[in-house]
Amino acid sequence: MAENKRAIIVGIPGVGKTTLITRAAEMLNQKRKTTVVIFGTIMFEEAKKMGLKNRDEMRKMSVEDQRRLQDLAAQRITEMKDDIVMIDTHLFINTDEGYYPGLPMRLLSIMKPTNMVMVAADPREIAERRKSDQTRQRDIASAENIQKELDISRVMVASCSILTGAPFAIIMNNDGQMGEAAANIAKILLGDRS
Amino acid sequence: MAENKRAIIVGIPGVGKTTLITRAAEMLNQKRKTTVVIFGTIMFEEAKKMGLKNRDEMRKMSVEDQRRLQDLAAQRITEMKDDIVMIDTHLFINTDEGYYPGLPMRLLSIMKPTNMVMVAADPREIAERRKSDQTRQRDIASAENIQKELDISRVMVASCSILTGAPFAIIMNNDGQMGEAAANIAKILLGDRS
Amino acid sequence: MAENKRAIIVGIPGVGKTTLITRAAEMLNQKRKTTVVIFGTIMFEEAKKMGLKNRDEMRKMSVEDQRRLQDLAAQRITEMKDDIVMIDTHLFINTDEGYYPGLPMRLLSIMKPTNMVMVAADPREIAERRKSDQTRQRDIASAENIQKELDISRVMVASCSILTGAPFAIIMNNDGQMGEAAANIAKILLGDRS
Repeated sequence: MAENKRAIIVGIPGVGKTTLITRAAEMLNQKRKTTVVIFGTIMFEEAKKMGLKNRDEMRKMSVEDQRRLQDLAAQRITEMKDDIVMIDTHLFINTDEGYYPGLPMRLLSIMKPTNMVMVAADPREIAERRKSDQTRQRDIASAENIQKELDISRVMVASCSILTGAPFAIIMNNDGQMGEAAANIAKILLGDRS
Repeated sequence: MAENKRAIIVGIPGVGKTTLITRAAEMLNQKRKTTVVIFGTIMFEEAKKMGLKNRDEMRKMSVEDQRRLQDLAAQRITEMKDDIVMIDTHLFINTDEGYYPGLPMRLLSIMKPTNMVMVAADPREIAERRKSDQTRQRDIASAENIQKELDISRVMVASCSILTGAPFAIIMNNDGQMGEAAANIAKILLGDRS
Repeated sequence: MAENKRAIIVGIPGVGKTTLITRAAEMLNQKRKTTVVIFGTIMFEEAKKMGLKNRDEMRKMSVEDQRRLQDLAAQRITEMKDDIVMIDTHLFINTDEGYYPGLPMRLLSIMKPTNMVMVAADPREIAERRKSDQTRQRDIASAENIQKELDISRVMVASCSILTGAPFAIIMNNDGQMGEAAANIAKILLGDRS
């Protein structure tokens, strides 16, 4: 019997992560029961149970309370029993205090991922995508700064891999490669050595 | 009420870390009670309690004894009750055995920093500053080697951030930017989301 | 009395790690009792005790069983009482699931290395060596991809250093430098501050 997989999928804004995950999940669902969860959404669901009304209120909570929410979300994800659970989240979030780790050791210990996948793309393509996606009010960054974000991502994902023991793959999602990239992710998560 | 902050400030020799911290502390002290501690100095104070006379004796201690001193220093820093404690230390120290980690997980677990700040600068400026600062017998390194030290620093600070859950900021302190850099650090440490 | 050393030596295929370790061990054995162990070999010895016949069977075991084998191997290495134990292993292994960490935190906690040494070389030289070493069926990679492997290695070794508190050295082993590189490793492992 194939093992259950719990894969954390990360990537900076503009790499096309969410669309890619949806596509990979469609492919995976033909063979094994697959669920996609967005970490931030699960956190907000937990926040609503505590009486919060919107995401702005969540962002204004104390660090301590936000951590509690993160822990609850991680715990809930761990309890999901599907064959494959794909967790859509961030390695870091840009804040006034600098880069905030989205996957601190504390959360990794709770979630115990079996796989880490980092989605990347050419920095110039990421810059173009961010420019055309004005609706989401993303920061417009130069290709050079985007390269730095990718560099930090690579460092963080390798570090997460050492902490968890899970393998990490870096999947390129350049323009016109979405199908191939989704197939790569599906292949990784269907892989089974038992 | 604003939370207390315990910020670890790191940077390779020649980035102007100590002067910058002093300046940032002056700014911060106008609003909240701020203390600066130099990790190595606290270690030496603990060593003196054990009867050591000078820093050379400390450097010649066994690894085991040095670790005990580090733990004691970290513990003492954790007990400081000021609104903001800035800890001036190193990510790594160049030794005959290679790069020695100045902030191993063991110490991070004791100190539980709320913030990590890495001070950086243009490698050529760092090289120039090291050349003119002969009194401190610093190693003269090429700009290329300094770039490598900065690269390793970035890796280590990201790794520390994942271990502690604390956000990390990289502050540039190029010639003529000291005021701006200090203001940036002050802004980070006054930031409060509660 | 000099402390015992347990050094983890890592390096990507083609850096000449195994030959280099042998040479360094010869030098070290003139002064202190030194043993070299290959992590994968110790793992396979443990697998044979469980009835496995060959390494292919080992690779087909479930993740869970492989982890148990790794833990047993790490435990056995920790029990070795020689003055210097050099552990020949990998920071990561290329698999269908991506980069598999050869030194996850779990194993580092068991082995508690005193030193980390990463062997590196010029990417073009590594590419040439891989081409001429067809017998071992190594992947032929471009110098550019080899550079990426070296970059990931640097990140991982720094991360291991923070987790263990052990210093890490990066030793260059370019063509014609083997003697010097071996002497450097010997010097690091004879170093003693007690």
